[in-house]
Amino acid sequence: MATIKDVAKLAGVSVATVSRVMNNSPKAKGATRQTVLSAMETLQYHPNANARALARQTTGCLGLIVADVSDPFFGAMVKATEQIAYANGSFLLIGNGYHDQHRERQAIEQLIRHQCSALVVHAKALSDDELRGLMMQIPGMVLINRSIPGLEQRCVALDDRYGSHLATQYLIQQGHRHIGLIGSNHKISDAKDRLQGYLDALTEQQIPINNRCIASASPDEAGGEKALIELLERNQQMTAVVCYNDTMAAGALSVLSDNNIQVPQQMSLIGFDDVLIARYLRPSLTTLRYPIISMAHQAAELALALSQGKPLPDVTHLLHPTLVKRHSVAELPATHSHHSI
Amino acid sequence: MATIKDVAKLAGVSVATVSRVMNNSPKAKGATRQTVLSAMETLQYHPNANARALARQTTGCLGLIVADVSDPFFGAMVKATEQIAYANGSFLLIGNGYHDQHRERQAIEQLIRHQCSALVVHAKALSDDELRGLMMQIPGMVLINRSIPGLEQRCVALDDRYGSHLATQYLIQQGHRHIGLIGSNHKISDAKDRLQGYLDALTEQQIPINNRCIASASPDEAGGEKALIELLERNQQMTAVVCYNDTMAAGALSVLSDNNIQVPQQMSLIGFDDVLIARYLRPSLTTLRYPIISMAHQAAELALALSQGKPLPDVTHLLHPTLVKRHSVAELPATHSHHSI
Repeated sequence: MATIKDVAKLAGVSVATVSRVMNNSPKAKGATRQTVLSAMETLQYHPNANARALARQTTGCLGLIVADVSDPFFGAMVKATEQIAYANGSFLLIGNGYHDQHRERQAIEQLIRHQCSALVVHAKALSDDELRGLMMQIPGMVLINRSIPGLEQRCVALDDRYGSHLATQYLIQQGHRHIGLIGSNHKISDAKDRLQGYLDALTEQQIPINNRCIASASPDEAGGEKALIELLERNQQMTAVVCYNDTMAAGALSVLSDNNIQVPQQMSLIGFDDVLIARYLRPSLTTLRYPIISMAHQAAELALALSQGKPLPDVTHLLHPTLVKRHSVAELPATHSHHSI
Repeated sequence: MATIKDVAKLAGVSVATVSRVMNNSPKAKGATRQTVLSAMETLQYHPNANARALARQTTGCLGLIVADVSDPFFGAMVKATEQIAYANGSFLLIGNGYHDQHRERQAIEQLIRHQCSALVVHAKALSDDELRGLMMQIPGMVLINRSIPGLEQRCVALDDRYGSHLATQYLIQQGHRHIGLIGSNHKISDAKDRLQGYLDALTEQQIPINNRCIASASPDEAGGEKALIELLERNQQMTAVVCYNDTMAAGALSVLSDNNIQVPQQMSLIGFDDVLIARYLRPSLTTLRYPIISMAHQAAELALALSQGKPLPDVTHLLHPTLVKRHSVAELPATHSHHSI
């Protein structure tokens, strides 16, 4: 491959001049600049980002850690983060943490090694202390979907407990009393908080909590199928189910359909996240909109600003999900005696 | 942050020794090695990958260009590629090309600048010539889902025309004669080849081609809705539709459901790709399995091997999709006079 010396030779200028053009120095003037750029083009010279990064001590990269990029929820997060990186002339590097302590640590280390000075981190398995230590070292590191005491201004999080409370309360308002919960078996705060919001709403309305109406499994379609089958087998005469997320709701819906249980006439279902598929299930899914795009935008902008030494704005970022009413929840008539489901 | 000098000082060794440990040199022996590693741990020293890359002229990174990581098809491709990178102690960098010439070029340039010596590229908008030029420069560059004449051994592609022929032929075997096509309006070879396979199968069976049974739109749920509405409006009495992909089929299915047209009793649908959701639609979708995981594995392994100077194996990689029969296709009785759909 061509080197900077080859470019200088072809353009008839010094290596220093080529370097100035590459770094957009105001000293590199019009015609010279054009000559250098066309020499780079001719030689297909790719400036070595590592050399430039060493000189500048930054690559201009924005790093993002997600749990699993093949999950549509994280796909949306990646896309939104990339939009901000692109708009800022930055480039996105992505790592997967798989909700595993070791993998999360390794992915963050890799991005640091690649000199990402701006980092948006979705880490659920690492401890508060370990993340706090990293955030102390890396001024441009921001957490998404997690809040750490004392560092709230560098965390863009969602109030999961509020969201799940809202979902359960809505079902209660529709006349439901026997409400099940399909939860996630991942040991992360989202799972705990979404369970707690459900319990809060029932307690508030003095509806007794029945542990046999609660099942948990992996937070994907297969987990939704498994958990719903478990609930049906336990025969607790539920009329509605709160689902941990839309993909679990999709799995639950397919089991109900296969068993000829009409949704929403015999069983109401509510999801969480409002991923694209929620709109295309039949019936379309009533769910909570997770403002993933605006959260990812906020986190990416904050990480880039902090990495450039800008002051930390005095705001916290604890967002609220909102209810999206579609066709998977029915009102239960006041006279209704529950189905034997 | 700590520097290599700090590590050397704390460990009581020379900078050269620390460097040997970092590079796994056999000269760095047991006890010394341990002392250096624990000094690195204590100081939370992150070796500067840019400096190491400069010295070695490689970062050990595997670069991947996809069209759009938020599309579940590409999510699966990213995950499979990452598995290979991880297994090889490498790290995945991802760029989005959005089927746009400028964005594809920019994403490839960025990965080259970051010294990815192994590259798996899904590029549909760039010309054969431009890609050929890049592949000549970068020995570790491999194409996925595209084949370029003369470089077939460095291309891992799917036979789209064969796949679409298979889908259409299956519908014909089930007794269908009035078969529609929902295509993609992206100007890429996949769209052209999947249309051609459909036309081939009809021609083979001497079924007249009716242009009014063909509609195309963006290859997503909304596009599937739009194209199916168009076909219904044209009132061509179809009994089956071949869809460009599963997400378009999901959109088509939701329109059919809203219009009380029973699938498969009144209308058969067949998808392409077998993304996860195909299994969870109701009826579950009959489709073609796109072997995306094995293709991504092959491409990533080939790119890594070539980037390490291993010889090019004398094999081509043109894979065939296979039929996955679920519940969205019905047999048409021989006596059947078509529905007026």
